[in-house]
Amino acid sequence: MTNKRKIINDPVYGFLSIEDDIVFDVISHPLFQRQRNIKQLGFTYLVYPGATHSRFSHMLGALNLMKRAISVLRSKGVEISDAESLGVQLAILLHDVGHGPFSHTSERALCNVHHETLTLLFMQRLNSEFGGQLDTAISIFNDSYPRHFLHQLVSSQLDMDRLDYLGRDSFFTGVSEGIVGTERIINMLNVKDDVLVVDEKGIYSIEKFIISRRLMYWQVYLHKTVIAADNLFYSILKRARQLISSGVALEGYAPLIHLLSNQYSASDFMSQTVAADDLLSLFASIDDSDVMSTIKVWMHSDDAVLRTLCEHLVERRLPAIKVSDTPFGEEYVASLRGLASQQYGFTDDESALFVNSGQLVNHAYTFDDSQIKILYKSGRCVDISQASDQLDRPFLEKTVTKYFVCYPKSLHINSCS
Amino acid sequence: MTNKRKIINDPVYGFLSIEDDIVFDVISHPLFQRQRNIKQLGFTYLVYPGATHSRFSHMLGALNLMKRAISVLRSKGVEISDAESLGVQLAILLHDVGHGPFSHTSERALCNVHHETLTLLFMQRLNSEFGGQLDTAISIFNDSYPRHFLHQLVSSQLDMDRLDYLGRDSFFTGVSEGIVGTERIINMLNVKDDVLVVDEKGIYSIEKFIISRRLMYWQVYLHKTVIAADNLFYSILKRARQLISSGVALEGYAPLIHLLSNQYSASDFMSQTVAADDLLSLFASIDDSDVMSTIKVWMHSDDAVLRTLCEHLVERRLPAIKVSDTPFGEEYVASLRGLASQQYGFTDDESALFVNSGQLVNHAYTFDDSQIKILYKSGRCVDISQASDQLDRPFLEKTVTKYFVCYPKSLHINSCS
Amino acid sequence: MTNKRKIINDPVYGFLSIEDDIVFDVISHPLFQRQRNIKQLGFTYLVYPGATHSRFSHMLGALNLMKRAISVLRSKGVEISDAESLGVQLAILLHDVGHGPFSHTSERALCNVHHETLTLLFMQRLNSEFGGQLDTAISIFNDSYPRHFLHQLVSSQLDMDRLDYLGRDSFFTGVSEGIVGTERIINMLNVKDDVLVVDEKGIYSIEKFIISRRLMYWQVYLHKTVIAADNLFYSILKRARQLISSGVALEGYAPLIHLLSNQYSASDFMSQTVAADDLLSLFASIDDSDVMSTIKVWMHSDDAVLRTLCEHLVERRLPAIKVSDTPFGEEYVASLRGLASQQYGFTDDESALFVNSGQLVNHAYTFDDSQIKILYKSGRCVDISQASDQLDRPFLEKTVTKYFVCYPKSLHINSCS
Amino acid sequence: MTNKRKIINDPVYGFLSIEDDIVFDVISHPLFQRQRNIKQLGFTYLVYPGATHSRFSHMLGALNLMKRAISVLRSKGVEISDAESLGVQLAILLHDVGHGPFSHTSERALCNVHHETLTLLFMQRLNSEFGGQLDTAISIFNDSYPRHFLHQLVSSQLDMDRLDYLGRDSFFTGVSEGIVGTERIINMLNVKDDVLVVDEKGIYSIEKFIISRRLMYWQVYLHKTVIAADNLFYSILKRARQLISSGVALEGYAPLIHLLSNQYSASDFMSQTVAADDLLSLFASIDDSDVMSTIKVWMHSDDAVLRTLCEHLVERRLPAIKVSDTPFGEEYVASLRGLASQQYGFTDDESALFVNSGQLVNHAYTFDDSQIKILYKSGRCVDISQASDQLDRPFLEKTVTKYFVCYPKSLHINSCS
Repeated sequence: MTNKRKIINDPVYGFLSIEDDIVFDVISHPLFQRQRNIKQLGFTYLVYPGATHSRFSHMLGALNLMKRAISVLRSKGVEISDAESLGVQLAILLHDVGHGPFSHTSERALCNVHHETLTLLFMQRLNSEFGGQLDTAISIFNDSYPRHFLHQLVSSQLDMDRLDYLGRDSFFTGVSEGIVGTERIINMLNVKDDVLVVDEKGIYSIEKFIISRRLMYWQVYLHKTVIAADNLFYSILKRARQLISSGVALEGYAPLIHLLSNQYSASDFMSQTVAADDLLSLFASIDDSDVMSTIKVWMHSDDAVLRTLCEHLVERRLPAIKVSDTPFGEEYVASLRGLASQQYGFTDDESALFVNSGQLVNHAYTFDDSQIKILYKSGRCVDISQASDQLDRPFLEKTVTKYFVCYPKSLHINSCS
Repeated sequence: MTNKRKIINDPVYGFLSIEDDIVFDVISHPLFQRQRNIKQLGFTYLVYPGATHSRFSHMLGALNLMKRAISVLRSKGVEISDAESLGVQLAILLHDVGHGPFSHTSERALCNVHHETLTLLFMQRLNSEFGGQLDTAISIFNDSYPRHFLHQLVSSQLDMDRLDYLGRDSFFTGVSEGIVGTERIINMLNVKDDVLVVDEKGIYSIEKFIISRRLMYWQVYLHKTVIAADNLFYSILKRARQLISSGVALEGYAPLIHLLSNQYSASDFMSQTVAADDLLSLFASIDDSDVMSTIKVWMHSDDAVLRTLCEHLVERRLPAIKVSDTPFGEEYVASLRGLASQQYGFTDDESALFVNSGQLVNHAYTFDDSQIKILYKSGRCVDISQASDQLDRPFLEKTVTKYFVCYPKSLHINSCS
Repeated sequence: MTNKRKIINDPVYGFLSIEDDIVFDVISHPLFQRQRNIKQLGFTYLVYPGATHSRFSHMLGALNLMKRAISVLRSKGVEISDAESLGVQLAILLHDVGHGPFSHTSERALCNVHHETLTLLFMQRLNSEFGGQLDTAISIFNDSYPRHFLHQLVSSQLDMDRLDYLGRDSFFTGVSEGIVGTERIINMLNVKDDVLVVDEKGIYSIEKFIISRRLMYWQVYLHKTVIAADNLFYSILKRARQLISSGVALEGYAPLIHLLSNQYSASDFMSQTVAADDLLSLFASIDDSDVMSTIKVWMHSDDAVLRTLCEHLVERRLPAIKVSDTPFGEEYVASLRGLASQQYGFTDDESALFVNSGQLVNHAYTFDDSQIKILYKSGRCVDISQASDQLDRPFLEKTVTKYFVCYPKSLHINSCS
Repeated sequence: MTNKRKIINDPVYGFLSIEDDIVFDVISHPLFQRQRNIKQLGFTYLVYPGATHSRFSHMLGALNLMKRAISVLRSKGVEISDAESLGVQLAILLHDVGHGPFSHTSERALCNVHHETLTLLFMQRLNSEFGGQLDTAISIFNDSYPRHFLHQLVSSQLDMDRLDYLGRDSFFTGVSEGIVGTERIINMLNVKDDVLVVDEKGIYSIEKFIISRRLMYWQVYLHKTVIAADNLFYSILKRARQLISSGVALEGYAPLIHLLSNQYSASDFMSQTVAADDLLSLFASIDDSDVMSTIKVWMHSDDAVLRTLCEHLVERRLPAIKVSDTPFGEEYVASLRGLASQQYGFTDDESALFVNSGQLVNHAYTFDDSQIKILYKSGRCVDISQASDQLDRPFLEKTVTKYFVCYPKSLHINSCS
């Protein structure tokens, strides 16, 4: 037996076991360990106190589901070589390794690079450290591996990522209605003509999965108070950038200040992946704690705008938020800014940081390459929209868009929160 | 404290507590205790081995939810007197007391009386035994009590009956996807203009409830193997009636034989509710064990048809079943009967008992008096079909109908089971 | 793929899967299917309404744990051949196949043969039907197979039987404190010198297991109201035997009446295992429903004693019961019988059936061949009583004995129930 | 209805509801909100990835249990006035408000003041802000309120604190064996002669509670890898203090640096509770994120010792740890330090920071004022050690002491980890 065999307790699945040395080594790597200090759901814990779970736990959880999926598929006669098995495990294990502080929340605010781009860069760096052992994982991840269904297990509308995060986020938020029949769905997985499919018996579970996912969107991921917190956070980072670019020297965690002093793009990251002291390492050195601690430092900034915004976040005096099926008029938003301006004595531009508007969009299902296919006993294979009696195409195609505006609670607008 | 205060363990909710003497006395009554030996889901335990739970446990569970609902409504300022509280508790406690063996399964086969009619008769008998203490409960149950929302708590599309049975059946079958956010839904209940409503925040939970209920229908209540078992059971009782009416003296539990020797209607039951030795008592004396034991006796009947049918049920050699979106043609069914006839050497009429066809119908939601209303903060109150972004009227109105035919597995038809 | 691959929902573990044809065939056999109608915990459902689960579900559950144990042991380098794996699976699957109605409850009352003896007879019969495919299973079951640890997985103080029933009974009764870390314990299993052991890391789990088991004994298996119900049931069968032996012709399910008309011993069962219509088949034809239905018939017996006892059980007017650390004196029991005699107008002998006394014994742990061994990393292997800081030998050796007397509730003795 | 009524999702209990304005206001206060960023179990999340839950969630959870306890006690006739009810709720809500970063872990390292002392100071400050509304809460907390059992609900061997943390820590670590029958225990609470007692029926639950607590100690709270992480953390803070006192200017979060530059005692805190900018506020401004972010800054310190220690923590290269029933000799520890000194090229004093030894102590139960009393139906009231058949005084009195030494993994000592 290898010394590296390890069993880890996980409240969602009971136990996770790690058998392969390379899997163990990847998990032990500092670039992976940093995800212990990155919350899976960003500021959601301000609304759901239990949701402090880390992206680290999600990545291990997704690995666990991948192992079960491989075992089910093999038991149905789908041939998966040991190298492919290890590759697809490493691909799912690392699928989120590029996330920065507070996961999605900081994505557009720290640097304008999609986390999947960063994930690939991290994977490549690890691959060179581990002497090419991640080659298969990378090709599965970026869909260049010949067997497409392996990529679909990592990234599609029924991938192990989604199955884990829906279950896990439901577990830690306590929104028990989001629970998905993960075990049953995985038991129903199959492969037909190199496409990941679901056995006929799993139709109702898939319907339930789609509806649960939608519920989680509106009840958790797009929860209006979470949106309000996110917008407050964006305003903080925006103000910090404004101050820095106007020559103010802000205190705080150096790598964070550095990122906010520049506007890095994906190409900046790619051009520097070799240097020891590079941009990728700098990015990797920032986690939730650095951002929060820096914001607490800024509570004592000379700039009243930054100070006020930071106080609001740290003391959880979150903005009020209104949500509507129709957009809020420019005038209405302007009037709120006026009120804020009046109350705080800030300029119009400054007040704009206290009143944010935007839209929330969710579609239950996407008609693209990642569709969910149902496999009948007859061998016929159709999209879930055709297989389901109830969730037909018009239902699934529907995109729900809502509009929000958030503003300081102290304005005492007649809110429907 | 009364000596009758009692705490009962329940695997679904943890603990059920009984505080009122009359509630304790009703539960202790033999007419209530008999439900301990009646399975909540009839022959479903032949498919889901865990589903051996009794109607007794469901009735206590629904009582438990009712108490929570009362407490939530009172905390929101809905006035409910102690007498009303007790009345609605007794109404839900007794709402299923009229069920016979195997719950719904035997309903059409033993005597042609709906279980709600029998429930009312049982309630009236108990009421006279308990000196009128069930007056309020009965008027709430039959909707003659002035405050309509109390009836809705007992019987509507969001009543405590449904909330308990969906959760309980999901728990015992192990079909975890059927889990409903019971606690959240109850927390969202409210009353507006004497109508039971759901607070705006509960919309997604209601959507989820409707979808889960549908899933439970197709995955459990109308599971094709359960349908096959039910049809086998009907054939047994039908054959027994045929034999008795042709003069054969069948052995077995006397009250059961008596019911099968007659065709009682609701009026027969009503005309005899006073006599000690009446039809209602006779009906009440039959539970699952009597039916099963009698069927085991019939395994040794002189009649080969009855014998064979009973063997099939007892040894769980259930019929094969095909389900289709379109009806099976007369000819096809006839051909199956022909094959059965050939195999067993029975007459055509006899073989008809081995080949049953029929339809399975489910609608997600019913547009009638029992609709689910959503209450907005503004005070506006609309049907869930209007409040939901996704579950609109066309979706909810849809009725799904499927057709089935079942036949002995030994026929070796090319089945898609 | 074989057509017989099957997935069964189980509320305790989620899913049970069956892959081998012989396992599927054994489960489908009528001698196995009959366990669907035998409650795992006898009359316990009169106290814990959820405890209606069948021995069938326990046997499948134990099979499921066995598969996990095999997989864990193999992953630790313990070599188990496919034949051994199948053998030990079949052994655990069938380990309780000899149980009669209400499991342990009827064991001493119907015929004086231990259920393990009957299990072996059933296994031998199945083995001859299945052409010797159970040879290995039988030798593992009766400990004649050379590798002893396989037998220990089936029968020892840490066998899969115990692990399943503690978890399952805890689940269905709702006594959540009985929950055992089944998954962790199985993960900690190992084999050293052909002895089943537990890895060092599992010490606390084993301590917890021993304490939980003890809790389940006093809170469930020896719950005083369950004991009262059991004693009432024994009195019923005893009275029935008395009447039959005195020439009274009792109605009821024929095989049950036959057993009560005779005093069969193990040798009677063994001498007849070949004939189609033998004693073993007769025994196998009786399940819970036949016993209950017959008792309901006896509610109308001419004998007032039998009638009264049966009414008490069916209407759940269970005896009152007193439990004490010291035995109840002969005189006290006699005085209770006198009171009962007075109240009912029965003779002394008859009244003795209404007043039962006896003792309840539990030891947390047994120092015999089935001890639980802890394996240290150093390779050292010691008994749990030495390995545990807290559960030392004096603690574990302690036998707790309590004394009970039960009597009709209507006697209105000053009881501490 | 007040606008402040609020329902919060909690994964452990489902829902927490807040009804009283003062409770809502206390929870909203920044001194309370800061606990959102303090992990309940310090560095335990490095071993159990799910254990990222906050002290905030524990404090709300304990409040929830307190409400249930009050409701149970009132239903048993214990009179508790509304003011007392609110007082005891606020007392439990605030019982941990004095915790600093990483809860217990930092307690001895940041300043030498017990968290209960700080809690009282925080409560007093809040009380003056809220105009004396916490008077009753404070007197219950410090046991000066006349009715002693109220204090016992907040602080004793069966308080709501313990019941919540055992259940919650078990939930989030995934150590399911730690689960305690919280609901049952609360249902069994009673008061006799102003002492909190447990009804006789709860004996087995209490036994289980004591055993589970012990299991949680060894499996979680004193888990050896957690101890290793804690010791690494202490060494970091110790080194930081050394450097600061020798005149090195360390970067990092200012309030943290300030605390490490001084040796404050309880009297320092007490003397300054009035000033706005005082020591208590300074302490309150530090949470987990500031400590972690500062440690990450120190990874680039000029001091190689500090740098190395910080790298070990951040990259989770935790020390190896040996645990033994007997103390490790001075010589052995010195030899380990020698090895470390050799490997790193540090002085002996510096190396001492890499090799820590100490002891771990747990007693299952304490015989003091906080004992658990069992109330018999007869009215007699005895200690659990007398009431329990199995957990007698010698068992409960036993103190288990273990000894540990931890050292850099890279030393490659033959460890038994």
